[in-house]
Amino acid sequence: MRLTTLSNGTPDGELVVVSRDAQRCLLAGGTLQQAIERWQIAERQLRGLEKLLEQGGGEPLDHGRLLAPLPRAWQWLDGSAFPQHGELMQKAFHLPPIETDRPLMYQGLSDRFLSGAQDVPLPSEADGIDFEGEFGIITDAVPMGTPAEQAIAHIKLVLLINDWSLRAIAPVEMKTGFGWVQAKPACSVAPFAVTPDELGDAWADGRVHLPLEVQVNGQWFGHPHGREMAYGFHDLIAHAARTRDLVAGTIIGSGTGSNTDYASVGSSCISERRAIEMIAGGKPETSFLHFGDRVRMEALGRNGSPFGNIDQRVVAAAI
Amino acid sequence: MRLTTLSNGTPDGELVVVSRDAQRCLLAGGTLQQAIERWQIAERQLRGLEKLLEQGGGEPLDHGRLLAPLPRAWQWLDGSAFPQHGELMQKAFHLPPIETDRPLMYQGLSDRFLSGAQDVPLPSEADGIDFEGEFGIITDAVPMGTPAEQAIAHIKLVLLINDWSLRAIAPVEMKTGFGWVQAKPACSVAPFAVTPDELGDAWADGRVHLPLEVQVNGQWFGHPHGREMAYGFHDLIAHAARTRDLVAGTIIGSGTGSNTDYASVGSSCISERRAIEMIAGGKPETSFLHFGDRVRMEALGRNGSPFGNIDQRVVAAAI
Repeated sequence: MRLTTLSNGTPDGELVVVSRDAQRCLLAGGTLQQAIERWQIAERQLRGLEKLLEQGGGEPLDHGRLLAPLPRAWQWLDGSAFPQHGELMQKAFHLPPIETDRPLMYQGLSDRFLSGAQDVPLPSEADGIDFEGEFGIITDAVPMGTPAEQAIAHIKLVLLINDWSLRAIAPVEMKTGFGWVQAKPACSVAPFAVTPDELGDAWADGRVHLPLEVQVNGQWFGHPHGREMAYGFHDLIAHAARTRDLVAGTIIGSGTGSNTDYASVGSSCISERRAIEMIAGGKPETSFLHFGDRVRMEALGRNGSPFGNIDQRVVAAAI
Repeated sequence: MRLTTLSNGTPDGELVVVSRDAQRCLLAGGTLQQAIERWQIAERQLRGLEKLLEQGGGEPLDHGRLLAPLPRAWQWLDGSAFPQHGELMQKAFHLPPIETDRPLMYQGLSDRFLSGAQDVPLPSEADGIDFEGEFGIITDAVPMGTPAEQAIAHIKLVLLINDWSLRAIAPVEMKTGFGWVQAKPACSVAPFAVTPDELGDAWADGRVHLPLEVQVNGQWFGHPHGREMAYGFHDLIAHAARTRDLVAGTIIGSGTGSNTDYASVGSSCISERRAIEMIAGGKPETSFLHFGDRVRMEALGRNGSPFGNIDQRVVAAAI
């Protein structure tokens, strides 16, 4: 099942169920946040609408009204579960490996998620504007102490996310140990949130088994595969819920996609490509983004594009 | 003006204006989040209710129904603006000073804030259960790029906060550079949010000029003064808004109170007292909290207790 949210002038928009071909939809009568808070009941109703769509019902889907599936969330916890990314970054900057025997995770800005089509306003090119292509999941309420094997059942929806990152600031904030505030502005999310079953065998081990293709200004940039997460999303949930109850509608991210075969699959962020260039040739060649640059992300499966795509420009914020 | 929120079965409760003696209140007809989103209009209405209270009107305030002023918020950004705290911590653990020329800040759990009276459920004493007494503020919407001198006008309400912290986990997470997730469960907030003018001359330079007294199991623990913040709350807002718009209802914290005269004023967290003990005698003497222990926080001003108090026990979470 595929869900999205249409703009209606309210911060949370209105939830719709979307047909497989993304051409038709049916109003669910509420918001995704409301649905995720009472998922057991809501899912049955939404599956009913999905059936009507399969039978040819529904209204035309207005692609101009697509928002992020959850336009704001009470909690966004982003992991860094692709170990190849960390290894390349630490090596390029001559830093020791990050010492930890558990998932890496920080809490980020969740009061707004940009749509996959709107312009992304940022204050300065000098901040080192970069993207991070990643997968994410939305949970229902997860009680404190939920172990990974039970956490898997709390994954209700799967997302495609661009975690915008400012690389001139990131290492400065990271060095303090406090994590990122300035370096992590609002993320963008591809329009369709899908239930795990919608991914078929591309959903396994709490991971999305699809390549995430990134293009910059129409040029291929990379297509790292989702299977190389060192921890599955169920592990990330268990990590997050160790000392807190997770609110329904918590979004958890995989961190930027990165594969051991980076030489052929490329990267899903500029920063990693620069790291690879530094390791190979002593200095980075690829520049960070300029205002007007366009970033496109999509994960293609056997049945097409489950999440739809992110395709948007970075622009100068009006300050 | 003093505001608080009463439980009514909804996650956001209902906003009331409270009399100076905290004995009477008047329903504002909505939530604090709604008021802060349209503060210019809301403040006038709330000040009208305050006048009625001053004239002796209102209902008795039911102290058993007091919640945190904002029982959940879209954003919680906690600083660490008392430099004495950082110096003591780094010295005790033989670490170099944190290299930064700007405020320290992390994004924390904001989907729930505990009341100042309810039990605090935590999973394990072995996590090193600790408190952090601090002041905080609530902003209206702050545009990206707002400088500190303009940020001061966005401070609408002032709070007293206990930022619960788990010290066995905190250094492990800090070492990764990603900030804290497991080490920072939900905070508690004293019942009354006050407008800056309510503090009189105890509000100056974007700082709360009051001692924050902490007691553990009825014993004095410390009373660091709010004036020693290296950055005022307006500076913290400007820092946070450098690359993002701040959503109305953003809560920003000072970080744990700490003074240069720590030998006589004590500390507002156990961890700092232990650091002082380590520096003086080579090892910590004070233990972290045990289930059943009670923590009380209050900031007394010339006209009494503006924020009311936090007085609650830590208990074993039902896992």
